[in-house]
Amino acid sequence: MNKYWSELAKRLDPYVPGEQPKDRKYIKLNTNENPYGPSPKVLEAIRDCTDERLKLYPDPTCDMLLSAAAEYYGLKKEQIFAGNGSDEILAFAFMAFFDPDRTILFPDITYTFYPVYTSLFNLDYKLVKVTDDFGIPEEEFYNSPGGVIIANPNAPTGKFMSVSSIKRILDNNLSNVVIVDEAYIDFGGESAVKLVDKYPNLLVVHTFSKSRSLAGMRIGFAIGNSELIEALNRVKNSFNSYTLDRLAIVAGTEAFKDNGYFEETRNKVISTRERVTVELCKLGFSISESVANFIFARHNTIKALDMFRELRARGILVRYFKKQRIDNLLRISIGSDEEMDVFLAEVGDIVREN
Amino acid sequence: MNKYWSELAKRLDPYVPGEQPKDRKYIKLNTNENPYGPSPKVLEAIRDCTDERLKLYPDPTCDMLLSAAAEYYGLKKEQIFAGNGSDEILAFAFMAFFDPDRTILFPDITYTFYPVYTSLFNLDYKLVKVTDDFGIPEEEFYNSPGGVIIANPNAPTGKFMSVSSIKRILDNNLSNVVIVDEAYIDFGGESAVKLVDKYPNLLVVHTFSKSRSLAGMRIGFAIGNSELIEALNRVKNSFNSYTLDRLAIVAGTEAFKDNGYFEETRNKVISTRERVTVELCKLGFSISESVANFIFARHNTIKALDMFRELRARGILVRYFKKQRIDNLLRISIGSDEEMDVFLAEVGDIVREN
Repeated sequence: MNKYWSELAKRLDPYVPGEQPKDRKYIKLNTNENPYGPSPKVLEAIRDCTDERLKLYPDPTCDMLLSAAAEYYGLKKEQIFAGNGSDEILAFAFMAFFDPDRTILFPDITYTFYPVYTSLFNLDYKLVKVTDDFGIPEEEFYNSPGGVIIANPNAPTGKFMSVSSIKRILDNNLSNVVIVDEAYIDFGGESAVKLVDKYPNLLVVHTFSKSRSLAGMRIGFAIGNSELIEALNRVKNSFNSYTLDRLAIVAGTEAFKDNGYFEETRNKVISTRERVTVELCKLGFSISESVANFIFARHNTIKALDMFRELRARGILVRYFKKQRIDNLLRISIGSDEEMDVFLAEVGDIVREN
Repeated sequence: MNKYWSELAKRLDPYVPGEQPKDRKYIKLNTNENPYGPSPKVLEAIRDCTDERLKLYPDPTCDMLLSAAAEYYGLKKEQIFAGNGSDEILAFAFMAFFDPDRTILFPDITYTFYPVYTSLFNLDYKLVKVTDDFGIPEEEFYNSPGGVIIANPNAPTGKFMSVSSIKRILDNNLSNVVIVDEAYIDFGGESAVKLVDKYPNLLVVHTFSKSRSLAGMRIGFAIGNSELIEALNRVKNSFNSYTLDRLAIVAGTEAFKDNGYFEETRNKVISTRERVTVELCKLGFSISESVANFIFARHNTIKALDMFRELRARGILVRYFKKQRIDNLLRISIGSDEEMDVFLAEVGDIVREN
């Protein structure tokens, strides 16, 4: 702390990203990245644009990317907003739709960036307790004083809430914006995007970092009523007019176009997840159903922190949260089949040694 | 306006970037881009990194880029912060160092994003009137209630304030942070970076969008005392942990390494600026001395708006500001010699026809 820091800088308790250690090569199952690289067509398009034109500012409206998204979802460009990863979009959305004097609601177990945003923007929030099997009690989100944010499927639990539940939450929040953070939706969940034409209070947030294999390019997008999108643009253009660089705009556009690659790789992740879930159960884990590219697992006898440390020593990173109610579980990203075979073999060893 | 917008979203008056029209090909002298492309080594490095690794998150600390900057300036990594263009860094700095109840100071004629940030973050500000020849009255910035931000050289005037003036402003603001926005410093000004070891209240902000020819990649950096840099990191990690993508980190790093290309291209811009200034004076313009990659010019008989429109119709974009005190001047970015020859010929025609 320092006398030059603003009151805001002093009060913050920043987000801590999953570790990216450089001491050795790890099998990284800790940040929910996709094991398969981006579409070869995306890489080719980036290389084709890597020329003198990088001296010029990117298109601040990201028109090409919005058009590709609009075509993909059968929506209008005015219903779509592009940003530097879904985290940036969430930050803009908290600014655009939530007010300091109106309490917002989100689950007690969810993406740990949400409380960080409330601290940054000085917002009040109330945590809604998820059930013991991590279900989200829908009615608790009705009639929020100031808005709702729900990750669906939820993180780090992988638990999915049906679109009809989302619909009822929207119906019971007609004065508030309900943000549905669908970062992991492409791995088996049903998207709420289909509701945006009907609900002017719905904002759905997606990312290219998971199912589109582009975490390294920082691209996210939001879908909603054009007036909500206008508010996001107002905030963005008061913050930084050009948050996506030229190569990111091209990468996102091409990713939407190569649907074959997208379908193939996400289906591979889904089938690996199902296989690994079965194998881990045989090794003594309890796992609730996940529709994400990770599973949230508790071993019946070995403590999560011990398992986390043992795996790390063996060159495998998973995510451990030192947080009430979930400090005996591990979030395990789904890697390639080869990576998961190594992971399962090491877990098997650890289980036999304990 | 819409009932779902926050009070913040309603009160904003967003920044308007220089136009990027798509109706025809223009000679773009309106957004201060560099006429020369990025270093060929930068382009090669980007292409070399365009592979499967883009599935992985970038390094949130941008360590490679900070190391290159530290080596370039002879500073420690802890004294440097990297961001998504200098606009994002300025936004973070306004959050990290300025408080709503303490008025900040900046010149009445300067980068038009500063008042936009004050609106976004609900800050009070007082404008300090620049002199009729656009000089910044140094003493007016002494003992600011809440901090100072100065663009040096100033935009859109191109006017430079000496480092000894900056030093006296720092000496007379020992309780406040003084941000010196040096976006255009490499085109002839003397940088205040040399003062950062001595002044814990100084933050210097730079960009890769001008002298490094990388506007399309969105890279900026700030230099200051490590405790100021820590505050910027706290804000960033409460907003979006990964604002620079993998290719931007590589591009910035390589740009620092290719110093020969940097020196060559910036010197070309400087000599073109000097030549164009002389020619425009012959055509009836009054131009105050600029040390930036643009000039700020007033014609002795033709109104700025008329000249702007005439040039636009002839395929040349310059920047016109509809703003008191400067609405009879044009900001003209320095293009290549070929572009500026076309520009001078068209201006000559317009002058003869009027």
